[in-house]
Amino acid sequence: MNATSSASFRGIDPATGKPLDAEHPVHGPGDVERACTLAATAFRTYRETSPAQRAAFLEAIAERILRTGDRLLDIACAESGLPAARILGERGRTVGQLRLFAEVVRAGDWVDVRIDPALPDRQPAPRSDLRLRKVGIGPVAVFGASNFPLAFSTAGGDTASALAAGCPVVLKAHPAHPGTSALVAAAIADAVAACGLPEGVFQHLSGPGNALGSALVRDPRIKAVAFTGSRAGGLALVALAAARPEPIPVYAEMSSVNPVFLLPGALTAKAEALGEAFIGSLTLGAGQFCTNPGLVFAVAGEALARFEAAAAASLARTRAATMLTSGIHAAYERGIERLAVHGEVQQLARGCASDGENQGRGALFAVDAATFRADPALREEVFGAASIIVRCADLETLMALAGEIEGQLTGTMHLDRDDHETARRLLGLLEDRCGRVLVNGWPTGVEVCHAMVHGGPFPATSDVRSTSVGSLAIERFLRPVCYQDVPDDLLPPALRRSNPLQLPRREG
Amino acid sequence: MNATSSASFRGIDPATGKPLDAEHPVHGPGDVERACTLAATAFRTYRETSPAQRAAFLEAIAERILRTGDRLLDIACAESGLPAARILGERGRTVGQLRLFAEVVRAGDWVDVRIDPALPDRQPAPRSDLRLRKVGIGPVAVFGASNFPLAFSTAGGDTASALAAGCPVVLKAHPAHPGTSALVAAAIADAVAACGLPEGVFQHLSGPGNALGSALVRDPRIKAVAFTGSRAGGLALVALAAARPEPIPVYAEMSSVNPVFLLPGALTAKAEALGEAFIGSLTLGAGQFCTNPGLVFAVAGEALARFEAAAAASLARTRAATMLTSGIHAAYERGIERLAVHGEVQQLARGCASDGENQGRGALFAVDAATFRADPALREEVFGAASIIVRCADLETLMALAGEIEGQLTGTMHLDRDDHETARRLLGLLEDRCGRVLVNGWPTGVEVCHAMVHGGPFPATSDVRSTSVGSLAIERFLRPVCYQDVPDDLLPPALRRSNPLQLPRREG
Repeated sequence: MNATSSASFRGIDPATGKPLDAEHPVHGPGDVERACTLAATAFRTYRETSPAQRAAFLEAIAERILRTGDRLLDIACAESGLPAARILGERGRTVGQLRLFAEVVRAGDWVDVRIDPALPDRQPAPRSDLRLRKVGIGPVAVFGASNFPLAFSTAGGDTASALAAGCPVVLKAHPAHPGTSALVAAAIADAVAACGLPEGVFQHLSGPGNALGSALVRDPRIKAVAFTGSRAGGLALVALAAARPEPIPVYAEMSSVNPVFLLPGALTAKAEALGEAFIGSLTLGAGQFCTNPGLVFAVAGEALARFEAAAAASLARTRAATMLTSGIHAAYERGIERLAVHGEVQQLARGCASDGENQGRGALFAVDAATFRADPALREEVFGAASIIVRCADLETLMALAGEIEGQLTGTMHLDRDDHETARRLLGLLEDRCGRVLVNGWPTGVEVCHAMVHGGPFPATSDVRSTSVGSLAIERFLRPVCYQDVPDDLLPPALRRSNPLQLPRREG
Repeated sequence: MNATSSASFRGIDPATGKPLDAEHPVHGPGDVERACTLAATAFRTYRETSPAQRAAFLEAIAERILRTGDRLLDIACAESGLPAARILGERGRTVGQLRLFAEVVRAGDWVDVRIDPALPDRQPAPRSDLRLRKVGIGPVAVFGASNFPLAFSTAGGDTASALAAGCPVVLKAHPAHPGTSALVAAAIADAVAACGLPEGVFQHLSGPGNALGSALVRDPRIKAVAFTGSRAGGLALVALAAARPEPIPVYAEMSSVNPVFLLPGALTAKAEALGEAFIGSLTLGAGQFCTNPGLVFAVAGEALARFEAAAAASLARTRAATMLTSGIHAAYERGIERLAVHGEVQQLARGCASDGENQGRGALFAVDAATFRADPALREEVFGAASIIVRCADLETLMALAGEIEGQLTGTMHLDRDDHETARRLLGLLEDRCGRVLVNGWPTGVEVCHAMVHGGPFPATSDVRSTSVGSLAIERFLRPVCYQDVPDDLLPPALRRSNPLQLPRREG
C-alpha cells in the first residue's frame, strides 16, 4: 500500500548491524483508515465466497510465494539473520499451512452447519425451522512476528486461518523484516487480483514504532487481533482492545518457558543422550522459538549430574548464532547477566563466543528448588538459548513445582516404563497448565496439522480457548449465526435445503 | 452452603412489595474462598468423568428439580411475580435443557478428538503422534438472571453447559429469588451426592449487593464467568475479569432492542395481524425477555398507519403485569417517562392501568427516522414492554438505519414474496449485526436446540463467538489440549487407541 506520507525506513541486517538498501513506507493514521475501510468493504463479499473460491485463493497465495524464489529467501535471510536452510524450511511450512487451510475450507466442518427442522405439529407449541452456520467475525488485524519472518508473519498461520474463515486481513509488518513482508504482501495482492477478489481482502501496513499497531487495533472496523511476540506487547494490545467502545478478541501468543521434567527412570537410563538432545532443542534457531525449553526439572543426584555434564559439554561446543534484532540480542544479554550475577544461580556453561554482531551464545544455569521457589524472576522467559535446570530434592518437590508453574505453550516429560505412576500424576498437572504435553521429545518442533495446539493458559497466550498453529486456528475468527424460518432462496448457500456446497451437516 | 457470618436477607414478593418469610444466608469473602477451593479440588476429578457419568449427573439434576414439585413453583411465582403457567413452562425448559446437554455429552462431538498418527518414515523429518481433545476450562462462576428464575439461573443453560463441559460451577444466586435458587441448589447438591461426585462440583452463594459477585469473579480459581443481565452489570464483570492478574473469558448477555423490519409487501398485506402479533410478543412476560422487540422500522404511509392503529388498540386492551422487582419496575417507569416527555416522540398507546405493586403497563411510541438518528438515547433498551416504531420516509432510509444498529441478539424481517430483493439486502446487514435472524416471526421465543444462537455482537453480549442457549453453548467452557507421543496407558480415555469411550474422531 502506498503511504499517505513520504517517510520511509529501512531494514537492518542483524549479522552486520547495518541498514539494508531498500526503503519501505512508514504508514500512518490515514493509511490505517484507508486499509480498514477497504477491508470492511471487502468483508461484505469475501465472507460469502464459496469454500472452493476461498480454497483456490489460499492455494494461489502459496503458489505465488513459491514463485518469489530466491529473492524472498535472500531478503528474509538478510533481514532476520536466519540461515538459508531455516528460511527455506520456513517457506515450505508457510506454503504447507496455506494449503492445509485450503483443504480445511473445502472440507467445511468449520461452518458447523446445524439444522433443526420445523416441527409444525409439536405440542404445546410448534418449532420453527432453525439453521446455524458460522461466519467470519470481520476484518482481522494480524501482527507479523519477529522470530518467523514467513510462517508467523505476513502469510503465516494467523493470516491463513483468518482468510480461511472469510475474514479480510490488515497486516502490520514486523519492522525487523519489512522487505520480506512487502514481497509476501505483493504475492498475496497478486493472488487477490488473480482470483477476482476485492483489494481490501488483504492490506499491508509497515513502519517502525508502536503507534501504527495501536491505531490499527483501535479502528472500529477491526473485529479481532492476532499477535505473536512479547508479553509486554501482547498485554498492550489486549488492553487497547478491551478499552475500545466495542471490545474485540485478541489472540496474543506471548511467552512460555516450556518446562521439561526428567523423571528418574528416564534420567538414569539416558542422562547423557538427554543432555545432548536438550542442548540441540535449546540452541535451535539461536533459541528464538516460542517453545524453547527454558526450564528443566529433575531430582538432584548422580544421574542429573551426568545430564548436566553432557549438556554443558554439548553447549560449550555450540556456535553462537546471529539473533533476530539488536533489541532481542540486547534483551537476551540482559537476561543472561541477571542470572549470571544471581548469588544462588550457578552457571553451568556458555556456548562458543563469537565476534560478530548480535551473536547469541547459549547459556545454561542450575539452581536448587528452594531458590527457584523464592524468586519469581527465575520463572520469567529469557528469549533466546538460555535455560535453567532446577534441582529438586525429591519427586514430591518436583511435583509441587509442577503445580506452581504458570500457563505454558508446552510441558514435556521424559519417562521410562518405571516412571509411569509419577508421569500419570504429573500429566494431570501439565494438561491443566499447558496447551501441549509431550513425552520423550522436545518442544521446539510445532507440527502444522489438525491435532496441534500452539496455545495455552495465560500468560502463554491471552486466550486459552484456541491455538495459533494447526487447522483448529480457524475457530478464532468465526461466530455463529442462526437463521429462523428464512425462506430457502434467501438463505446463504451453506444452509439451503439442497445443500449446494455439499457441506457436512448436523440435522436434529 | 452455610455462611460464615450469621447475616441473612429475605426475598420480596413483587406483587405486594412485602418481604417473604424465609431467611437466606448472606455469603461473604470467606464463603467465596471456601466455594472456590472446593470447586478447584472437584475440577481435578470432575473433568475426567466419563460422558456417561456426566450425562447421568445432568439427568439426575433434572429428575430432582421435577421432584421439588409445587414447592419450587410456588416459591418461584412468589419471588418473581411471574404467573404459574410461565413458571411451569420454564421448569420444563430447564429440565429439557439439562437433558439436551446429557445427550450432547454422550454424543461427544464437543470433545473434538483429532488424531494425527505418527509418520516415522516421513522425509525430511518424521511426524510425532499427535492427539487433541477439548477439556473443561476450569471452575465457572455463573450469575443467576432476574428474568428467568429457573431457565437462566441456578440450573439454567449456563450451569448445564458448564457442567456438561466438565467444569464445576460456583453459582451466585440472583438476590430477587433466593428461595427458588436455594431449592434448585439443594436439588443439584442431592444429585452431586447421589452420583458420588465431590461436593465442589456445585457451590451456591447468595446475598444482596455486588460485593459477593465481584469477589467471586476475582477469585483466581475461577476460569470463566457467565452472566445474563444489564449492560452495566455485564460491563462491570468484564472489567473485573480483565483486571485480574490472569484475565478470563466473560460471557455476558447484556442488552438488545431486537429490531423488527416490516417490509412493504408484508406490511400492506397484513398490517392489522402484524400489529396484534407484535403486541403479543412485546407484552409477553411483562416484556421482560432479552429478545423483546423494542424497535420497529417501516416505511411511513397508509399500511404503517393501519399497523400502528391495530397495535395501539391491542396494547390498550392489554393488562398490566407484575414486573420482576421494584428496581426493574422503577427503571422501566423512568425509561417510559424519558420517552413520554421527549418533544419529538409520539406516544401511541399505553396498556391498561393497574393499582397493584410494580405493575408494568406496556408503552408504544413512534418517531420519525431523522429524530431517531439524531438521538442515540432512543436506541437504548428500556427493559420491559416498551417499543418505538421508527417511521422511515422510504426503503433507503430503512436500510440506512439497519446499517447503523448496534449488535443485537435478534433481527427480524416481515416479508412477502414481493419483498425478497429488499430482504436479501437487509439480511446481509442483519446477519452481520445479530446472533439470530428471523423471518415472519417474533423474537421472544428462544428454542433450546442445536441450531439456536442466543448471542450476538457487542453490546448484545461481551463475546460474539458464542451462544448462551442451545447445545453450542458448551463450547464456551472448553479449551484444546494436544498430547504428543504420550504412551497409550497414560493418555486420557478419550484419546486411547482402543477408543473406549466410543467418541467420534477426526483421523488425519
